[in-house]
Amino acid sequence: MKRGLEDFVPKIVDHEERRRAIAEATALLIASVGIEQITVRGIERDTGFSKGIIQHYFSNKAELLTSALDWANQRYIRREQRALADAGATGLAALEIRLENLLPFTKEIREEWKIRLQILGLATVNSELAARDAKRLSLARNRITKDLRIAKARGELRAGLSAEDAAQRTMVVATGTNAMAVVNPTHFTRQRLRKIMQGLLEEFRG
Amino acid sequence: MKRGLEDFVPKIVDHEERRRAIAEATALLIASVGIEQITVRGIERDTGFSKGIIQHYFSNKAELLTSALDWANQRYIRREQRALADAGATGLAALEIRLENLLPFTKEIREEWKIRLQILGLATVNSELAARDAKRLSLARNRITKDLRIAKARGELRAGLSAEDAAQRTMVVATGTNAMAVVNPTHFTRQRLRKIMQGLLEEFRG
Repeated sequence: MKRGLEDFVPKIVDHEERRRAIAEATALLIASVGIEQITVRGIERDTGFSKGIIQHYFSNKAELLTSALDWANQRYIRREQRALADAGATGLAALEIRLENLLPFTKEIREEWKIRLQILGLATVNSELAARDAKRLSLARNRITKDLRIAKARGELRAGLSAEDAAQRTMVVATGTNAMAVVNPTHFTRQRLRKIMQGLLEEFRG
Repeated sequence: MKRGLEDFVPKIVDHEERRRAIAEATALLIASVGIEQITVRGIERDTGFSKGIIQHYFSNKAELLTSALDWANQRYIRREQRALADAGATGLAALEIRLENLLPFTKEIREEWKIRLQILGLATVNSELAARDAKRLSLARNRITKDLRIAKARGELRAGLSAEDAAQRTMVVATGTNAMAVVNPTHFTRQRLRKIMQGLLEEFRG
């Protein structure tokens, strides 16, 4: 393996940690005050880094926003992986755990949806953010498709239903339901959300 | 009928027309440059009204945004009503026309989704906008439920499916699908979107 100069620069870990800290602060600001109210000053206050340092890592708002979306998405994926490993679940049981991990019943999950939905809104008029969001959704679809292929091989899916169609269905239902639930928690009670997700899994079963 | 002072004030129509013109200009700006880039100056330019006049009708940005959402929603409902009347459709046939009128295949429909999705994003951190959005969704659900009750009475729905559950399902699928399609038109082709909507209607049929 080729060794480069960076192997001798001890600050490389700090750079990553700084980027992560700035992304986290931006993400939590998006979830609390909203994208419109985000300022470099607010990020300065929350991270302790100066404006110059922040701008060194992120030269414009679009970069800050995508780093925040990535941070939220990584937190979500880590939590999901942990839940899947704890349960040792695969196939439809894994899909059920993934769906549960998207229901906006905890502060963390609500924060993640607030970030996703604000970025989605902005992505409708920003092609760079749209491309990033399309990639995020495509990776999520791949994870779900993998579960559903295992489910299919194991005979957990009803005859005639492909893993790909079921994955598409899952993405549509999870996005539509949780998006509406975040802005309308009065209508989308826990009971109603669980019923929608259970209905989806029942529809898939053979 | 009681006659009030307003019957003798000739400018009342102008007020409504001005409000409508400002709401329309704001809506089209949201769909083109995005909420973040909206300024009173931009609305001045597009309507020809002075800053003072604009602020007379809308005292803050939240009011401007909800008026823009209402304008887009009214345009959508008028188009839908026209299509329903032209087809003389009721029951599942009416629902099919409603779903078609939400697919982002025309400039108008894409504009409406861009406005809805940006407002939805903002509504995650703004309780006033969230309440407004919840009301809009509740009215949409009522229109769909009416179609599905007729479908149910006519025996168009499969046994065991209530009009209310089918309406919920329709809202979730239409919101989830079209939201993702607007930011990812490459994946959500016409063929794929039509297949999703046809799949939904087939699932409802007896």
